Amino acid sequence: MKYCFGVDIGGTTTKMGLFEAGGEILDKWEIVSHTENGGEAVLPDIAEALGKKIAEYKINEQDVIGVGVGVPAPVNAEGIVKDSANIGWGYKEVKRELEELTGLDAEIGNDANVAALGEMWKGGGMGQKNMIMITLGTGVGGGVIVDGRLVVGANGAGGEIGHICVNYEETESCGCGNFGCLEQYASATGIVRLANQRLNKDEKESMLRHEKVTAKAVFDAVKAGDEVAKEIAEEFGRYLGNAIANMAVIADPTIIVIGGGVSKAGEVLLSYIEKPFQDRAFFANKEMKFSLATLGNDAGICGAAKLVLDKNCK
Amino acid sequence: MKYCFGVDIGGTTTKMGLFEAGGEILDKWEIVSHTENGGEAVLPDIAEALGKKIAEYKINEQDVIGVGVGVPAPVNAEGIVKDSANIGWGYKEVKRELEELTGLDAEIGNDANVAALGEMWKGGGMGQKNMIMITLGTGVGGGVIVDGRLVVGANGAGGEIGHICVNYEETESCGCGNFGCLEQYASATGIVRLANQRLNKDEKESMLRHEKVTAKAVFDAVKAGDEVAKEIAEEFGRYLGNAIANMAVIADPTIIVIGGGVSKAGEVLLSYIEKPFQDRAFFANKEMKFSLATLGNDAGICGAAKLVLDKNCK
Repeated sequence: MKYCFGVDIGGTTTKMGLFEAGGEILDKWEIVSHTENGGEAVLPDIAEALGKKIAEYKINEQDVIGVGVGVPAPVNAEGIVKDSANIGWGYKEVKRELEELTGLDAEIGNDANVAALGEMWKGGGMGQKNMIMITLGTGVGGGVIVDGRLVVGANGAGGEIGHICVNYEETESCGCGNFGCLEQYASATGIVRLANQRLNKDEKESMLRHEKVTAKAVFDAVKAGDEVAKEIAEEFGRYLGNAIANMAVIADPTIIVIGGGVSKAGEVLLSYIEKPFQDRAFFANKEMKFSLATLGNDAGICGAAKLVLDKNCK
Repeated sequence: MKYCFGVDIGGTTTKMGLFEAGGEILDKWEIVSHTENGGEAVLPDIAEALGKKIAEYKINEQDVIGVGVGVPAPVNAEGIVKDSANIGWGYKEVKRELEELTGLDAEIGNDANVAALGEMWKGGGMGQKNMIMITLGTGVGGGVIVDGRLVVGANGAGGEIGHICVNYEETESCGCGNFGCLEQYASATGIVRLANQRLNKDEKESMLRHEKVTAKAVFDAVKAGDEVAKEIAEEFGRYLGNAIANMAVIADPTIIVIGGGVSKAGEVLLSYIEKPFQDRAFFANKEMKFSLATLGNDAGICGAAKLVLDKNCK
C-alpha cells in the first residue's frame, strides 16, 4: 500500500492527515502552529509529526509518495512563499526546506487554492473539471480550477477573488488598500458592515436590533423571515452574484462551490447568490450550477494530499 | 522534415499557413469563406486547399503532424461548435468532420483564444507562460493562458472578456443583452460611442468635430494633442484598466498583450491603460507588464499551428 500526507497550515493550528494513495483518509490530527520567532518552528514541527505518524503506523518510508501542504499565503510554482503575515514567515523556500527536513517529496500550494482542489476531489465539486471555489470567511478567498488544474499564476496569486472590484463608487477602503473589493461585502466582516449600514439607514424593526450583529445572525434572521435581514442578504448576494458573473466569463466553469464559515447558513445562501448571477450572466454561462462545500475543515488536508497525488500521476 | 497547418476561419476569408514543425512559416495564403447554405462548403474548401498545398510542396502525408483551426465561435474540448453566426454553422462537429475530410489530425479552438496562443508563441507575449491577450476590434475578444495552456472552459467560452461588467450603472445594452460590458467601452464601436457622448456633452472645440468619428480618429487626435480626444482616451482606459485589474486577480498573468485593429494606435494606447490599471491593481499584480501584439493577421494561423504542435508534444 502507498501513502501520502496532507497538511493545512493555519495561524493557530496545523491540520494533518494520513491518506492511502487511493484517497481514503486513514488518520487526521492537529498540532499547534508555533508562529513566534518568524515561524521558524513551523516546518520542523510538521516534519517531526510526520515522522511520528510514519513510526506509529509502521510505514516503510519508500511507500510514502509525498507530503502536500497548504499555506495561508501566495505560493509560486517553485514552492516559495515571499511573505506570510499569519505564520511569521518572510521569504521562505517551503518546498526545499520541507523536503530536506522530511526526506519526502513536497508540493506546496496556497491554502484557499488547495481547499478548492479538495472540494473538487471529494466534496461539493466532485466529478467536475472546471470549478471555482469561493471561501467566505473572515476574508474572501478562492481557488480557480481549469481542466482539472489549479490556476496558480505567475506570483502564486491566482484565484485572489476577494479583491475583484464590484463597486467602483465605494469610498471605504478594503484591507488591501483598494476600494470596492468583493471582500468588503461578502466576507463575514463585510456582511456585518452591510448590516450595520442598513440598520443605521432607518428605524425599521428587525431581530438584528436586539442582538450582536454577525453574519450568522443575519442569515438566522433571514430564515426567521426578518425583512431587514432579507434586504441585507439581497445586497450581499448582488455583489457576490455580479462578481461570479465576471469570473465565469473568464474561466467558464461548470460549478461554483461556496465554502467557509458564512456557508454554514446553508442552501438559503445560494438562493440569494443565484438570482443576481443569472441576471448578469453571459449567455454561455447560464447553465452553471452552485453548490455548498461539504468537506468543512478537511478540505485543506484533502486538497493538499491531492496536490501530491496529481503530481505523481503525470 | 515534419509539417503542420494553421487555419484561421473568418466570416469573409479563411487564412491558411504551412509551417515546419520547428515553427517557421513556409507559406501563407487565403481562400474565400463560403458561408452561404449554412456554411456547408467551409470545411470541404479548407480540405481541398490543404490537399493542393501538400501536392504543391510534394509533402509526404505521413510527415504532416496535423491541422489546427481557429473558429469565430466557442469551441468545446471535443472540437464541437454549437452555433457560429458568422460562418452560418449551427451544431457542428468540426474536429471530426475535418479529420474525415483531410485524413489529418485536427485541433480546433476559438479564434481569439488561438490568436492569444500565437502571440505567446511568436509575438508580444513570447517567452511567457501566464498571459492574457485582449483583442480590441469591432468587439472585444480575448484569450487567457495559464501555465502555457489556454483556458478553454466547460463550454469553450473561457476568455470571453468583452463581457466582463465594468459599469453597473450603464443603461444602454450590449449586443449580448447585458449592461455595462467591457465591449461597450473598449471596442472600436465602443470608443466611437464614448466619443459621441463626450462630444455631445458640451461645445468644447476638438478635431473630432470636423471628421468622421472612428477609434482611429480618436487616437490620431490624441497624438495631435487634442484635449477632448484625451478625455475620451482616459475614459476608455479607465474601463479597460479596471477590467484588467479584475482579470489579474483571477489569473495572475505576467503580461497583457493588446491586439486587434484599435491596437494599431500604438504605444500611446498602452499609456492610457497602464495608469488606471496600476491605480486599481491588487498588490501582487503590480509588476505585470503590457505589450502590443506583433503578429497582426498572422496571430490566428500561428496559434492554430501551435495548437497542433502542443497536442503532439504531450
